[in-house]
This record gives sequence, structure tokens and C-alpha cells, in this order.
Amino acid sequence: MIEKYSIRTDLALEQKERFESDQVEVQGVVLEEEVDEEREIKITTVKIETENGAKAMGKPVGTYITVEAPNMAVPDEEYHREVSVELMKFLSRLMKEEKKDCSVLVVGLGNRKVTPDALGPYVVDNLNITRHIVREYGKYAMGEDEVDLVSAIAPGVMGQTGMETVEIIRGVVNETKPDVIIAIDALAARSSKRLNRTIQIADTGINPGSGVGNHRNAITEETVGVPVLAIGVPTVVDAATIVNDTMENFLAALEESETLKGVGVVLQGYSATEKYELVKELISPHLNGLFVTPKDIDETVKRISYTVSEALNLLFSKRTCT
Amino acid sequence: MIEKYSIRTDLALEQKERFESDQVEVQGVVLEEEVDEEREIKITTVKIETENGAKAMGKPVGTYITVEAPNMAVPDEEYHREVSVELMKFLSRLMKEEKKDCSVLVVGLGNRKVTPDALGPYVVDNLNITRHIVREYGKYAMGEDEVDLVSAIAPGVMGQTGMETVEIIRGVVNETKPDVIIAIDALAARSSKRLNRTIQIADTGINPGSGVGNHRNAITEETVGVPVLAIGVPTVVDAATIVNDTMENFLAALEESETLKGVGVVLQGYSATEKYELVKELISPHLNGLFVTPKDIDETVKRISYTVSEALNLLFSKRTCT
Amino acid sequence: MIEKYSIRTDLALEQKERFESDQVEVQGVVLEEEVDEEREIKITTVKIETENGAKAMGKPVGTYITVEAPNMAVPDEEYHREVSVELMKFLSRLMKEEKKDCSVLVVGLGNRKVTPDALGPYVVDNLNITRHIVREYGKYAMGEDEVDLVSAIAPGVMGQTGMETVEIIRGVVNETKPDVIIAIDALAARSSKRLNRTIQIADTGINPGSGVGNHRNAITEETVGVPVLAIGVPTVVDAATIVNDTMENFLAALEESETLKGVGVVLQGYSATEKYELVKELISPHLNGLFVTPKDIDETVKRISYTVSEALNLLFSKRTCT
Amino acid sequence: MIEKYSIRTDLALEQKERFESDQVEVQGVVLEEEVDEEREIKITTVKIETENGAKAMGKPVGTYITVEAPNMAVPDEEYHREVSVELMKFLSRLMKEEKKDCSVLVVGLGNRKVTPDALGPYVVDNLNITRHIVREYGKYAMGEDEVDLVSAIAPGVMGQTGMETVEIIRGVVNETKPDVIIAIDALAARSSKRLNRTIQIADTGINPGSGVGNHRNAITEETVGVPVLAIGVPTVVDAATIVNDTMENFLAALEESETLKGVGVVLQGYSATEKYELVKELISPHLNGLFVTPKDIDETVKRISYTVSEALNLLFSKRTCT
Repeated sequence: MIEKYSIRTDLALEQKERFESDQVEVQGVVLEEEVDEEREIKITTVKIETENGAKAMGKPVGTYITVEAPNMAVPDEEYHREVSVELMKFLSRLMKEEKKDCSVLVVGLGNRKVTPDALGPYVVDNLNITRHIVREYGKYAMGEDEVDLVSAIAPGVMGQTGMETVEIIRGVVNETKPDVIIAIDALAARSSKRLNRTIQIADTGINPGSGVGNHRNAITEETVGVPVLAIGVPTVVDAATIVNDTMENFLAALEESETLKGVGVVLQGYSATEKYELVKELISPHLNGLFVTPKDIDETVKRISYTVSEALNLLFSKRTCT
Repeated sequence: MIEKYSIRTDLALEQKERFESDQVEVQGVVLEEEVDEEREIKITTVKIETENGAKAMGKPVGTYITVEAPNMAVPDEEYHREVSVELMKFLSRLMKEEKKDCSVLVVGLGNRKVTPDALGPYVVDNLNITRHIVREYGKYAMGEDEVDLVSAIAPGVMGQTGMETVEIIRGVVNETKPDVIIAIDALAARSSKRLNRTIQIADTGINPGSGVGNHRNAITEETVGVPVLAIGVPTVVDAATIVNDTMENFLAALEESETLKGVGVVLQGYSATEKYELVKELISPHLNGLFVTPKDIDETVKRISYTVSEALNLLFSKRTCT
Repeated sequence: MIEKYSIRTDLALEQKERFESDQVEVQGVVLEEEVDEEREIKITTVKIETENGAKAMGKPVGTYITVEAPNMAVPDEEYHREVSVELMKFLSRLMKEEKKDCSVLVVGLGNRKVTPDALGPYVVDNLNITRHIVREYGKYAMGEDEVDLVSAIAPGVMGQTGMETVEIIRGVVNETKPDVIIAIDALAARSSKRLNRTIQIADTGINPGSGVGNHRNAITEETVGVPVLAIGVPTVVDAATIVNDTMENFLAALEESETLKGVGVVLQGYSATEKYELVKELISPHLNGLFVTPKDIDETVKRISYTVSEALNLLFSKRTCT
Repeated sequence: MIEKYSIRTDLALEQKERFESDQVEVQGVVLEEEVDEEREIKITTVKIETENGAKAMGKPVGTYITVEAPNMAVPDEEYHREVSVELMKFLSRLMKEEKKDCSVLVVGLGNRKVTPDALGPYVVDNLNITRHIVREYGKYAMGEDEVDLVSAIAPGVMGQTGMETVEIIRGVVNETKPDVIIAIDALAARSSKRLNRTIQIADTGINPGSGVGNHRNAITEETVGVPVLAIGVPTVVDAATIVNDTMENFLAALEESETLKGVGVVLQGYSATEKYELVKELISPHLNGLFVTPKDIDETVKRISYTVSEALNLLFSKRTCT
């Protein structure tokens, strides 16, 4: 059903769920689930192992770990610290570099001036930056034998800079030669239920849009020359997605409705394509460029940005490359 | 049709349009339109003259001037200055006070940290504040014979302060005794087409929600003791509104559809209430507390806040009370 | 020596030190010191007990607790948490109210847009605000038997509002009837060594300038009607203070200098007043309205604001009024 | 007199004045003055023409235009617009590139979170960015035959990024190949009288510290590969500078004082070096890393940032390269 792929989600987990709801088996994609009952944290690992799997999923080959922590939307400092520790462990697990004195560039993607897009810049604001200190005074200045050299940038968005973000990152990488990049970005989810309570970690970098193939604007090992870990938190849903979802529910309800049985009978006579056409003409073109986000997005983004920056500071205080 | 009133709009103009689309004549409500072809500005004045009109409209008796300027979303400085001049004239027209050395308190409502809600605080950031200067050095310090005493506050929202905004404003009014309040607020529109290109000026103050009756949280002459002019710009649409609109379009389309003629025939057999129930059960409860806004909201809110603050600075450099 | 009193310090401790350096005994002022060697925290309590003491000290009768924690300028999260706990204890100690369901208004004084003056507004940004929740859902909504009702405001400075801050606070107090106010402010120190490593807590409210007598702009129990606890952190030194200090050192050095023995001999022949005149004519009038602050003030103010807001959140999670 | 050169000023004009006050003729440095009486604007052009001149001045060979406009500290919109036009003319004059479809990278240096250092980032916030539009839709999308491609970045400071700013800029230049860079920076002046009322434009780029020789951290044609125009506005004075100035005045006064004639006689017997030693030991080491700035720096920096961004937007709407 073609319309399904037109719906935007940045979460591999949600993409996988779509196939499951259609009871389609996707070759080359492996899913593992783990639940930490006590802390109400659910970990889902989606591994896309083949190019076919990548094509079907619309996302590159790689590992996508999703941490669902419903209480993350709530101001409980201790709980957030536990999530930080979990995050830190998964980041370590995805890290492939083995190197002494690892140099990490953290990239805070997004627009600091649009609240739900400010996650990346906010995370960068709270990092312990050390590269310049180690370079000037040596690693013993940090009181450690082995240290990460941490640098960071919040490059802004194209409307502010006139440049593709990947141009800026590639330039900075060429000059400063980090071993690995960790990129933080606000994502679009498919379901408003996931907003601000889900974190996705992937070893595939940042792939805007459907994300497979040669995207010149992707921030990946191919485009910038060093491995790119991505941390993403869904903070918005596309307006078109929310409308489309309701329409799909509506069509399903019509087909099953007792009250409107007659309508259901009629609709069952139409093909998926005919139904899709119906939906499409009803989704206003005015919805382009509109996003949906919660009213308390300022509090939530601030809180989650601390959770992520604490995870990174923990990671860097150990050894990022192993 | 009951559901119509459950749809939120802060614009009197949009409320009026709903009746027109239903070809309902509303008693006690007068509408005037004026079009400035050259500058593509459309002015609509809605006067609610009777309590019956107020009840029907869900808004208090008073005058609501709507300035629709499609190019306001565009970065054309000269155009914005023309809109500022228009705005200033309409503000003068609604002002009832006659007083020498008029004292004006500008209130920038909304949450500075959520971009589409930051309009009020941003306007306050760019005002020429004079009350403290005039009080300390006399009005001749301003180089004028007659001056306004301008004060301003951006009180924040309840989640930040723990207080109703009207509590703060009433307290400040009791202490500083302004002659008039001008309150600036970001509004919710019904149609995404109106976002960031419409300004509403009203002499009825700020009436949260449906706005008629004894709202303890309203900011009006009744609740704060001095006349309140309100300047509002729609920057968001409620998520539920956008979904509901699409559903209404959908139902209408079904009834008229050639392709799905049979469905239409069936639906025509159902009452408005039955159709409404269908819609309601399909609108996800997850949409509560979600709003829809454009991606470039940072640029637009910044630009419009200058337009409004320039209008106010022009107003104050003349004489606000006449 | 008259010039000494013209030097501005907001710290009672520094005022007391000036007398000691002159070996003057001040009647009605008691000083106690406590040192926590392990954590390198020094606590000094200055009690001004009589009106004579107040006159001599240029500060109202009351208790001033100064916490000096040199490492507070350093990003050590655990250390900051210990300082928060200390602060919380001292705040409890100074609190006089005894009341169930205590209502506290936190006031974040200062200008959010001038970094060293942003401490108060930043603290307010990170508080757990509860008054509106308790009022709407009852105290059991908080999961506690006894709760504080916490409200907060960052009123801005006179140049932004056109109003005296005390006018705004008094208005808000009249409307919302808190039992106690806690006001946070950035202070001016006398010595740059104290910047960003000292916190003063006082039960005398906020007293601008020399602070004794009927100051209409003070924020004290007299002016706003409820007790006012003040938390202050020195983040700036007046430019005139720094110059004056160097001049005093210079004069002292001249008198003792081996190299310039002759000069010392000459100077010893002159009175304090004559020397003071010399200094005064050399302190440029251009220094008025200038302040001195460290280059990393952004990091320091952010860090200390967390320390203070954590202390307050701890205090409110227990019982503020006892 | 060695101490003179240890005093920091980023203004070529002030460096030149120091020689004049010593009645020293500097070879290879030419000075021109122009006064616009009506608008109270004074233009001084310092041309450093030889390497000897550069050595003496402590600044590289090139042209430094200083615009002194005392009213720039005042909120008069019309006056600021006139200053913008002047600035634009001088920028054109210093531009050497001749090229169609000139590509300009604007760099907003400094720390957005420390008010007096935020000038560069604020200017970037208000530019019309066009590079991405022209690249995607062609220059006719801009409605012009000849357009500049404007890109911009506010890279942050080393404490935030862990990288030298020149590393970031060089990387971005290598990727995006601009024809010219315009860098905006907040400067340190020698005299507090010049703060916020002076703009320096130079064709020599940004030279931190004394600025001559091979500075790896300079942002100049040598280090980044394209010509760099610099726009600087003094917003701070080093704390050590202000103290030193007062000391010099003091020494001078002592030598001339009637009252303290004896001191003068003694001091005249000592060499400049001896006097310098005296000063040095009295300037507290605590002054390192401290700067002096006015209390209303938030308003001033905001206002001047508009003036500069308007000058740049005017320049780009014409043709930057000619």
C-alpha cells in the first residue's frame, strides 16, 4: 500500500511496526525486545542486515536501538539519571572505534530558536568540552591517564546559514580529524504517543527523508569520512501524518461500523488505491510545512536534553573508543 | 450542529464565517469589510452589539478589527512598516480614554520559551519604555509637551509562575494605576491559512476559551479595573481542529463523491449527530494538548513582533489617550 | 576615613571586614565563623542586633549568613549538590513562619539579558512550581500530606518595565497572599576574589544601595507586607571599586616603599582627607555605570543558578514553614 | 615605555593616539580624519603601509577605518539607519574582489551567552541569508540579475566548541568556497569613552592579541585562504587597562600636584621602568580574565547589532564584489 511509505517517521521501530500491522515478513530485518519491568523501560533493537531489508525499511543497513521510557516526560530527576546510564551503555555498545585518546565531535543538529527542534543545540550547551584543554595542557591536566578529546558544534539550520549542515560538518572534520561523530537531532515520529518518551540510537548516522541511497545531505561515514552515531528523540509529528492516521482509522471504522453498516459494505467494494485517493484529496496542501507538538514542549525538551548530555558526559568520563 | 462550537478559534472573523457557511443570520452582529487592493490588506470589522449576539458568537460585546495581510509572512521591511501604520490607526480608533499624560501598561502574554507563544514577550522586548523616566525627570525630559507613560510586563504562563496571569496583572494595575492596558497574545486560528498573516485588535480584552460569561481568568475591564485593548496574532491551530476539518471535508466529499456514490447515499441517511459521533470517536485523545505550527515559526514570530512593537511605539510617540 | 563608606558592597561580611582592617570595634554586631575543612566551605554569620550596629554597617538589623565555597566556580556536580544541601539548611534556619501548607513566592530579580545579572531569572527557570496544581487538584495531587505552594516571578528590571520592582512584587503579594518571599539577586562584591564563590542569605530582604532607612524601593517586610528572605551571589564588582582598591594599595605601598622612600615620607605628611581627594580626582567619571565581571560568567552563573534552584527545590519538598 | 604596549586595545586608532600622546612620529603609518559635523560622525582612516609601521603599531599592514558616532549609544532609529549607510559605503570601499555572483561568508564571532560578546552572533541572526535559495532556485528567484550568495555562521568560542575558531572557519571555507569573509567581533577598547559608539572596519582580518606575525589563530587571508574584512565594535575594556590608566593619571598628577609637590619632586627622580614596576605590583593578579562593561550593555549590543546587520543587508542587496 503505497501511501504507507509516504508517511514520515524517523524511528526504525515505527517503520517495522507498519509491516507487522500488515502482517508482512521483512527479509533481512531482525527485531529484539527487552523489557525492564521495574523501571518501565522497553528496549527494542532493530537490525537491518541486508540491502533488501534496507530497501524495504527505507533506512540504511545498521543497528537501531530504541529506548522507550514513558516517565521520561515527567520531571523525576532520579529516573532521568537511570535513563542516562542506560543510554550511556547502548552508546558504548554501538561504538566500533578502538583507540587510545579518542577524539569525539558532538554535533547538535536543529534550530535553537524553534523549541521542539532545539534538542541538539541544548545538549551541546551542557557538555564537558575538553579537546582544547587536553591539547593545551596535556591529558594529565584532566587528572586521568586516558581521556577523550571532546569537541562540539551546533551548526544551525540551512535557513540560518545558507549552507547544508553536511558541508559545515565535513569542513570541521577535515580540519579537526575526530575519530567519531555523535550527532543529536530532534525527530519526527509517526505516533504522538511516542513524543518525548523515546530515544533512538543508531550507528548509521543522520539520513534525512526516507534515508536510503546516495543522499548528498546525509551525515554518515560516507559523506563525512568518520563513523557517525546518531541520537534522536521524536519531538514532533508531521501535521499530514496525524490527519492521515485519523483518516485510516476512519476508513477502518466505517468498514466495521454497526451504525453505518451500509457505508462499510460500499467501501469494501473499493480498492486500496481508490481509498488512498480519497484520503489524499482531503489532506489539505496547507498542511505542508506544518508540524504538531505538545504545549509543554519547552519543559520536556529542556529535561530530555539534560538526560542526553548527562549520558554523553558519563560516556566521555569513561572511554568512548574501546 | 453542536460540534462546530467545540472547535476553537480566537478570531471573531472566523466565528462569523462559520455562521455564514451555514447561512445562518446572527442577530446583533454587524460585519464591515474594506479592501486596500494596492497593498493587499483586507480589513474586517465585526461588531457584536447585543448580548444575544455575544451568546451566539461565543465572544463578548465589543469591536473586533481583523487585518489580513498575506505578505506579512514575508520579510519585506517596507511592507511591515505600512502594516505598523495601519495597526497604529486602528488602535487609536478603539481607544476610548481621554486624558492628558496617559499611562499605558503593555502586557506581553504567553511563554517566551515556546516559539509560537513568544509573540507577546518579544513585542515587550522592543518597546520604548518611558514611565520611569517621566516619573523621575518629568515629561520635558522626553522633549515633548504631552507624553504617554509606557510601562510593560511579560508575566509568563501559569506553568512557570504558579499564578493566574490575571492575578499578576490585577496586582500590578492596583499598584501602578495605568489608564489603559494593551495586551498582546498569540492566538489559535481555525484555519492554517490565517497563521502569521492576520492581526486581530479588540476592545474586549483577553477572554480565554469561549470567552463569554464570568471567566475569572479573563483579562478585561471587569477583572482588572481598566479598559483592555487586545492585539492578537494567530500562530497555531489546535491539532484537534485540523483533524476535525479534514473529517468534515471528508464527510462532505463522501456525500458528493461520484466514485463512492453509494457511500454518500448511505451517509445521507444519518443525522448530524450520528455523523458527529463518528468523527469524535476517531479523533484521538492523544491530540489534546497538541498544537500545529509552521516550521519557520521562529522567523515569522520575530518579524511580526517587530511590526506590532513598531505600531505601539508609533502610537505612544503620538498620544494614546485622546 | 570617609571614602571607605562610599565603596559599594552588598555583602555584610565585607562591610564587617572593613571595620576589622581599621581595627574598629562595631557595637551591636556579632560575628561567628565555622569552617568545614573537608569540603572547604566557610560559613560566616553576621548578626546586626541594634540600630546603632545597623547604622555603622549601613545594613538593616538582621542575620546575614555567608557561605564561601571556592570550588563553587568549578564544574563539580557532586560538590554543588553538597552546597545545595548546606544552603537548604540555612534557609530553613532563617525561616520564621510556622504554618501548614505554606505558600512561598520566589522572586528572581535582575535582568535576564545581561549575563552576570541573570542569576535570579535563571533560578526561577528551574524551580518546581506547584501553587497552581495544589489549588486545582488539592495537595494530595502532589502525593504528600503537607506541601508548599510554590509560585515564582522574574519581574525584569526598571529599564524593561518602567516600574519599580517593588511595585510589581507588592501588587502580586496583595493578589496571591504568599506567607513568605524568597528573593534571589546578583550582588556587587568589593573584592573580585569573592565573585561566584560566595552566597549570602539574609532575613532582611533586598535593600538597594546602602540599605538603611526608609527606602521606598527596598523589598522587605515593611514594603511588601510579608517576610522576605534574600539569597544573593556576588557576580560583579563596581569598576570604581576596583580602581579605588588599587589606589589604596598604591598609597600604602608608596608609604612603605624602599625604592620610593622619599615619596612615602612626603605622603605621610598628608591627611587621610587630602589623600582621598587625590584618589577621587583620578577616578574617572566614565567609571559610573560600569561593572567588572569574569569572562566565563556565562558558565558560572548557569552552574550557580542550578545550585540555588536545587537548594530551593529541596527546601520545598520538605516543609518551608515549620 | 614598555608598559604602554602591554595595554590591550583592538582599535588601530587608539594605538595611534598612544604614539601621538608621546609625540612619537611613526614611520609607515598614515592618518586621515574626516568629520561630518551635522551628524556628529567622525571618520578616521589609519593606513599601515610598511612592515616597520606594522611592527610599531602591533597590527598588520592594511587599512583601518574607524567610525565614531557618539549617538550610536542612543535609541534613535533614524540615526542608526544613517550609520548603516555610512558603514555600507566603507565596506564597499575596502572590498577588493571583482566578480559576478559574489559569494560572501559572514562570521559572527564571540559568545552568544555573554552579553557584551554577543554582537557577532546577533548580527548573524538578522541577515538575509540567500546562498541556499540561489543554489536551489537560481539567482532569478531573488528577482535580480546579479546577486550575492550570502551564507553565515556563528561558530561559538573555544570554551564551547573545544576548537579554535579558525579551524571551524577554514573547514567551512574549504567546503563552501566563498569569495570573501566578513567577520564581526566585539572588541576591547582602551578607553571606556569609546564603548558602544565606535565601529572599526579593517581589511586585515581578525588578529587576536597584539596581532603581528604568524598567529595560528588569526582569521586572515593567510590562515583561511580568502580575503577577510573585519567589523569590530568595542564593547568592553580589560579590567587591567582601566586600573593602569588611573595609575598613569595618578603618577602624572603626583608629578604636577601643587598640594603634593614634594611627591612630584621625588617621583621625577625615578625612571619610567621604576614607575612601571610600581604600577605592576599594584595591579592585582585577580584582574586577569576580568572585563569592564556598561550596565545597559543588553540594549546597546542589540541596537548596534541591528545597525551592522542593516549595513550588511544593504551591501548584499547591491553588489558586494565589484
